[in-house]
Amino acid sequence: MTSSKKPLPESLRSLVGRSVSEIDTPALVVDLDAMERNLTRMTEFARKHGVSLRPHAKMHKCAALAKLQMQAGAVGICVQKTAEAEILAEQGITDIYISNEVVAPSKLARVARLAQALQKKGGRLAIAVDSPEGARALGRAMATSSATLHVFVEINVGHGRCGAEPGEAAVAVAREVVAQAGLQMAGLQAYQGRAQHLRSVQERRDAIAVALDDVQFTRSMIEEAGIPVPLVTGAGTGTFALEAASGVWGELQAGSFLFMDADYARNERDPAQPVFEQALFVKSQVISRAADRAVCDAGHKTQAIDSGLPLVHGQTLEYANGGDEHGLLRGPDLPALGATVWLVPGHCDPTVNLHDFMIGVRGGIAGGRVERILRVDTRGALQ
Amino acid sequence: MTSSKKPLPESLRSLVGRSVSEIDTPALVVDLDAMERNLTRMTEFARKHGVSLRPHAKMHKCAALAKLQMQAGAVGICVQKTAEAEILAEQGITDIYISNEVVAPSKLARVARLAQALQKKGGRLAIAVDSPEGARALGRAMATSSATLHVFVEINVGHGRCGAEPGEAAVAVAREVVAQAGLQMAGLQAYQGRAQHLRSVQERRDAIAVALDDVQFTRSMIEEAGIPVPLVTGAGTGTFALEAASGVWGELQAGSFLFMDADYARNERDPAQPVFEQALFVKSQVISRAADRAVCDAGHKTQAIDSGLPLVHGQTLEYANGGDEHGLLRGPDLPALGATVWLVPGHCDPTVNLHDFMIGVRGGIAGGRVERILRVDTRGALQ
Repeated sequence: MTSSKKPLPESLRSLVGRSVSEIDTPALVVDLDAMERNLTRMTEFARKHGVSLRPHAKMHKCAALAKLQMQAGAVGICVQKTAEAEILAEQGITDIYISNEVVAPSKLARVARLAQALQKKGGRLAIAVDSPEGARALGRAMATSSATLHVFVEINVGHGRCGAEPGEAAVAVAREVVAQAGLQMAGLQAYQGRAQHLRSVQERRDAIAVALDDVQFTRSMIEEAGIPVPLVTGAGTGTFALEAASGVWGELQAGSFLFMDADYARNERDPAQPVFEQALFVKSQVISRAADRAVCDAGHKTQAIDSGLPLVHGQTLEYANGGDEHGLLRGPDLPALGATVWLVPGHCDPTVNLHDFMIGVRGGIAGGRVERILRVDTRGALQ
Repeated sequence: MTSSKKPLPESLRSLVGRSVSEIDTPALVVDLDAMERNLTRMTEFARKHGVSLRPHAKMHKCAALAKLQMQAGAVGICVQKTAEAEILAEQGITDIYISNEVVAPSKLARVARLAQALQKKGGRLAIAVDSPEGARALGRAMATSSATLHVFVEINVGHGRCGAEPGEAAVAVAREVVAQAGLQMAGLQAYQGRAQHLRSVQERRDAIAVALDDVQFTRSMIEEAGIPVPLVTGAGTGTFALEAASGVWGELQAGSFLFMDADYARNERDPAQPVFEQALFVKSQVISRAADRAVCDAGHKTQAIDSGLPLVHGQTLEYANGGDEHGLLRGPDLPALGATVWLVPGHCDPTVNLHDFMIGVRGGIAGGRVERILRVDTRGALQ
């Protein structure tokens, strides 16, 4: 198991209380005011719609932010990897759902140990499964444990990645789950990842309508088999208002709403959703100037570009790919050598995963101060 | 300054001596035999052509591998970031070239301290510069130092990123370099990054021919201004045979040859270059199976996809993007749930930067053993 306790460098510790202008570049900066407003809007939304919020910690990867979300009313957190669960558990998070399949026996032994540890603390561990073999493997891992592992049967509601097909295939998985001692059938995992970035509201509505049919049909079949389905969990920042309105999903797993990114900003906004503000930025500096371009010190080792290049914040500049360590800026009013440029990452999750620390600022990125350093505890926790 | 000494987890330490089959997934695995053959071929090439080798450590980010390269005959290493230089210096590398522009005063103070520290150890620090302002900033930083900072004037030889334009603009930078106490004009930085992945040998030849003209023209002008140009440094894994054959470049900065990747493998091979083998792999596991796909546990948090998706090694499977944590495998002969799949990353540099450790294996990835764990010392060292 990976220990996440990378020591805080003195250069970052000494930054607390200082002006944003003193943050060295490139750096990942969180506008804490915007982030907290996002969290408040999301928790209010969930409360108003009578659904639980279990934000995905694969996005921020930070125990302090997971705790903040739980203090705001989240029922727990999601992660994708066993190591993420272990690290966040070590740091005091007690209700964790690994919303992904785990099949390696060595990892399943860790899952079993973690289920035991969390249960001792009054918490619980949940996991997803999408095959009868997977359910049996979970059962074998829990066979010698006195703890209970909560298991969601994942169904493919159009994402086309993991998940048993809706209907009979999912029922077969559920039957295997209830046949195993040490496993408790917790419900259905139904996440339509492809729907999150469909640009129009109508496309997203159509996709979630299909997912809803899949969920209702599958839930009925599992219940007809005599197996209760206590909860349907899923949804992301692009569609959660639709899942919440369905009356079928009882728990929302959205993560990106906390920070937002350029790719989510490209979605047509669903008026049913709260407005989320951009809270995650890369502070960058111009290190070279030519007649037709400025070159900044943030390339794709600084922000992930899987979902598009970053946008330049507050300036009419276009960012072009300059490789691992550089960005090429073009536009009518090029910044001078040494100037600061603020970037909005294309995709928040893998961008955060490039950094060991995020710098939390209060009072905005224009003139605020550094309030706290946020450790990216589960950075690189892939296993 | 970032400390790189992330402790080695017990789970990795205990892996040494064990079979490759026991490596947990996803993991970054280095075939040490293939890597060493690549290094031997490259050092022999450099020796035969009478050029120095200064491999780019932005690729492997690993002090142990930098040392291995120097033992094999490399004259020093390149890095892109001040923090990379600091970390590798801390671990015993004494001849370091920051082949990039640094303009922030806080970073330049660190550059000056590092120049002093390396000089005391009998080594040296070099840096690139591409503007008169940049040269003056270097001079100011070195003003109170008794050390010498070796400075390469970077020229834009067609890459279109950093670099003064060839000719007068470059001469103006060189004049400013020699006007500053504490700076020593070391030569020209001339790297044609865009040429590295031009697919045909002819395209690469054409691009480096243009770069060669730029270099010769600029060198003559600087020398006519009475400023010696002791060395031209540059080149990458795609073109280095061309720079070496020119008789003008005296130092090669290639980095990727050590590990290789899917993107370099797409280049038509230049018969003038040695054959390099793929030495960097992602070990991954199938965690979900459907009729038309297998889903593996390595997404773009495991391997960078800026230069294309990974290839599946040794199997006729196509890898499609499954997001941060998953890969979608399709093909005529889908692997079973739990099966191992080996991936060849699209781009080695940013892939290594996603990992804290690489697992070095001896005897091949099919049936070998873990020999050593390689720490990615400068992972995330962006400043």
